[in-house]
Amino acid sequence: MRLRNIPRAKERVAQDAAVIQDAIQWRGQWHTVFGNDHPIFIEIGMGKGRFLTELAQREPDQSFIGIEKYASVLLRALEKGTPPPNLRFLCIYAESLCEVFAHNELSGIYLNFSDPWPKDRHAKRRLTAQGFFDRYAQVLSPDGFVAFKTDNRALFDFSLEQAALAGWQAGDITYDLHNSAYAADNIQTEYEERFSSQGNPIYRMVARRPDALHA
Amino acid sequence: MRLRNIPRAKERVAQDAAVIQDAIQWRGQWHTVFGNDHPIFIEIGMGKGRFLTELAQREPDQSFIGIEKYASVLLRALEKGTPPPNLRFLCIYAESLCEVFAHNELSGIYLNFSDPWPKDRHAKRRLTAQGFFDRYAQVLSPDGFVAFKTDNRALFDFSLEQAALAGWQAGDITYDLHNSAYAADNIQTEYEERFSSQGNPIYRMVARRPDALHA
Repeated sequence: MRLRNIPRAKERVAQDAAVIQDAIQWRGQWHTVFGNDHPIFIEIGMGKGRFLTELAQREPDQSFIGIEKYASVLLRALEKGTPPPNLRFLCIYAESLCEVFAHNELSGIYLNFSDPWPKDRHAKRRLTAQGFFDRYAQVLSPDGFVAFKTDNRALFDFSLEQAALAGWQAGDITYDLHNSAYAADNIQTEYEERFSSQGNPIYRMVARRPDALHA
Repeated sequence: MRLRNIPRAKERVAQDAAVIQDAIQWRGQWHTVFGNDHPIFIEIGMGKGRFLTELAQREPDQSFIGIEKYASVLLRALEKGTPPPNLRFLCIYAESLCEVFAHNELSGIYLNFSDPWPKDRHAKRRLTAQGFFDRYAQVLSPDGFVAFKTDNRALFDFSLEQAALAGWQAGDITYDLHNSAYAADNIQTEYEERFSSQGNPIYRMVARRPDALHA
């Protein structure tokens, strides 16, 4: 999601207690931010943060970090009020993931309705491109997962293929999440609710690393 | 593949040394048929057998069993000459798999261009329906695989979804096998060569059971 630039968004984001500044300094120490040893999950491209806020409320024994590269978008999440105590935000680019998180530091990564970057020459920018799966492998624990949902069929197929090329395996695949056995556990994003209410299907998969499972 | 009924096909199939009769009696003893302890792989719906014959020649330290329900089709494989010593045939229905093979007896299952059974009410007959994955789980070793390729996109998507519902994970996914990184290792079936020469893509995935990997 991209909004028009909002004046002073960066300033506001820099002052909010829920937004962790200088993320790199916490690399390998993220548990201390939350003051416990709960597993840590992130969402990359959290938008207004509804999905992660609901998930954090549902799972009080897990810690969550919402990542959003645009300060003007993150601002919208902050304007919704104080997030639950097990949720923090980062205003960083996904490309810096390995500088911000240490090996095995994360238990799961959520990607919801990521930018499809439809042009072929932009394929590497997609958050489910092989290069990103390689990054995710570095920061995830061996049994960690990448859960991905989208309304874009071409992006979904691309993602399954790229995950495979990176050596990952895909489970929990569905081509109609809202009418599947997985629907009961699904937390909708703002975009998802709007889109699916028009009768459009949502695609979802959860990728894991088999080599890690073998180890 | 279905051919017109060929007179005496059953008789011919029943007399060929490469075709194992009374398959059920070998349940749990298939290694003794080959006289070694090599891992055993099967193809369900082998048609004229070109794929499995080539694979058996390439992998002399593995044993292969080609399964074909129609005697008139299996006859075509037999007419090609004596198969390699590490290849045998069975004229049985896939539904009887668990009566023919014991737990953990197989290392891999190949499904190539299986009948799509396009009508919804026949979905359970598709060899990649959830019920078949449950059968495969019973006869495969914990790290065993189901390798599936098809030219039918709807069947491919169905198969990914059904494998997931059965608790399996899919790897090596490609929507264009012949133009993928996996192309060099690919052995073509008769049908595949004809179909892909017209410029049509081949879809492929390899499913495994994550629970088994964890164990």
